[in-house]
Amino acid sequence: MRRPRLALVPGEPAGVGPELAIAALRREPDADLVVFAAGATLARAARALGTSLTLHDARAATAPPGGDGVRLVEVPNAAEPVFGTPDPRNARSVVLALRMAAEACMAGEYDGMVTGPVHKAAINAGGIAYTGTTELLAAHAGCEVVMMLANDAMRVALATTHLPLREVADALEGERLERSLRILHAALRGDFGIDDPAIAVLGLNPHAGEQGHLGREEIEVIAPVLERLRATGMRLEGPLPADTAFLPRRLAGTDAVLAMYHDQGLPVLKYSGFERAVNLTLGLPYPRVAVDHGTALDLAGSGRADPSSLLAAVATCARIAEVRRTRENRR
Amino acid sequence: MRRPRLALVPGEPAGVGPELAIAALRREPDADLVVFAAGATLARAARALGTSLTLHDARAATAPPGGDGVRLVEVPNAAEPVFGTPDPRNARSVVLALRMAAEACMAGEYDGMVTGPVHKAAINAGGIAYTGTTELLAAHAGCEVVMMLANDAMRVALATTHLPLREVADALEGERLERSLRILHAALRGDFGIDDPAIAVLGLNPHAGEQGHLGREEIEVIAPVLERLRATGMRLEGPLPADTAFLPRRLAGTDAVLAMYHDQGLPVLKYSGFERAVNLTLGLPYPRVAVDHGTALDLAGSGRADPSSLLAAVATCARIAEVRRTRENRR
Repeated sequence: MRRPRLALVPGEPAGVGPELAIAALRREPDADLVVFAAGATLARAARALGTSLTLHDARAATAPPGGDGVRLVEVPNAAEPVFGTPDPRNARSVVLALRMAAEACMAGEYDGMVTGPVHKAAINAGGIAYTGTTELLAAHAGCEVVMMLANDAMRVALATTHLPLREVADALEGERLERSLRILHAALRGDFGIDDPAIAVLGLNPHAGEQGHLGREEIEVIAPVLERLRATGMRLEGPLPADTAFLPRRLAGTDAVLAMYHDQGLPVLKYSGFERAVNLTLGLPYPRVAVDHGTALDLAGSGRADPSSLLAAVATCARIAEVRRTRENRR
Repeated sequence: MRRPRLALVPGEPAGVGPELAIAALRREPDADLVVFAAGATLARAARALGTSLTLHDARAATAPPGGDGVRLVEVPNAAEPVFGTPDPRNARSVVLALRMAAEACMAGEYDGMVTGPVHKAAINAGGIAYTGTTELLAAHAGCEVVMMLANDAMRVALATTHLPLREVADALEGERLERSLRILHAALRGDFGIDDPAIAVLGLNPHAGEQGHLGREEIEVIAPVLERLRATGMRLEGPLPADTAFLPRRLAGTDAVLAMYHDQGLPVLKYSGFERAVNLTLGLPYPRVAVDHGTALDLAGSGRADPSSLLAAVATCARIAEVRRTRENRR
């Protein structure tokens, strides 16, 4: 069976992304990786790691290169990157690399996309309105998505993502929640191969609202959605109090937790295993997995950044690509 | 040095509190315990555990009893409790036991109070307005308090407690936050013996507001409070993004985390060690430590409930009593 072919976008060239990409390639992951970046940036990252590098044009090369070879889709930078200092002039190429990789995934040239960290402020400073790669890829593909973080211990999806806390309660809306649950459920089946996934859905309020004493969104918004979806056969628990939903004995019977907002779900996910955590975008036509860390500007160029999350992202994306292919072949 | 003398209030008589109290007494904790409950309820709990019990009037007994003896301050129930079914007619005695223990602690008869789980709905159904034991004891003592959960892995205090999520942002208020931090800081020093405690203060919004892009409470409310208190010499980190503040390597240098609301801090605390977690009320004239679990009505009378949290609560309360006594003797 052929190895999955993945587009690897290292992200911000002044951050640790490029050197993590080289480090990951050196660990011989179970996938054929093609890097979307500037060759000069990768060469500099290789020097930072004290290793050599031979670049191959991905569109010309027929076979994966051996030794120190790296297959590249060249996306040149406007300015020479300086380790630790993102340059807004490179915002356009950072976003272009993501768009080119997305385009190629949509065209079926790749089985999935793995992305390193980008620098949100630098992209915005470069004149490009950008709220996150998840949102960018969703807009590019023209579909609704769900953000999910995962490691060996748990999978946590979010019903709302990057909102001020005071806007969360009003943003929680039944139809959108229902679509998010459908996307999550379909991804657990189609991407993770779990035939009848069990999902734990959290309440919005402490103690899941305590029968309405601490808020009514559980009664008015969340429970009705769960009722409708249970009627279609989905295994959904909840709305559950968030503080006890993550107890290890409860997680044991759960394939994913749907948290209502960012800080309800992510502190426990990151505590349970930050280094191996990855960030998935569910609902795109192709698998997309990202690292669960930032650009680590203080470490850029040092060669000391830990590639565990990027390696986990590559492994997760490759596994999803295999599951998708197996399912397609069955049809 | 004399052992700490602690008031132990088992809580709801139809729940697991009474049998946990007996089980804890049998483990010979490092404290002299006096139980505030109905003797008949304790005798029944002992039978559920298959053990015998001799009750001693705590006000008459001069020395801690040996063997199967238990020292008791009798607080009779209005109705015979039925395992698993809280009776609103007993609401008054549940609350009276708490008040009597609080009174005795205020009078210096005890070095601290340990409480089991109560049933909030049953107390309210019994015609007593009750939001929580923390609030009840604060009102009784006439002081402001801070709720803190703790286990071997971390201490997490809350700036707001049991509020609907949509009310949290408006409830966060600078002067109150400043007083909470002062109470927390004083408790880490006076109750835990940490001379110069380091406190990690979370932001309210995801990513601690991302420089105002995801909310302004960090800039307008939290940061100014931290500035003022740092000027008094407190070691305060923050406002920090909640999702990475609990990473084990960060917790290593931190004596407590102040979360802005319930579900931002408690899922990770409970995940990190639920069985050994305890709930502390900081700011009272006496130490008060509670179990971190509910009445477990389904287990009541089975003898199978795990007394770990109650034992941890007794040990924590005894340790705090020792620290307070040592500090007083030093003066």
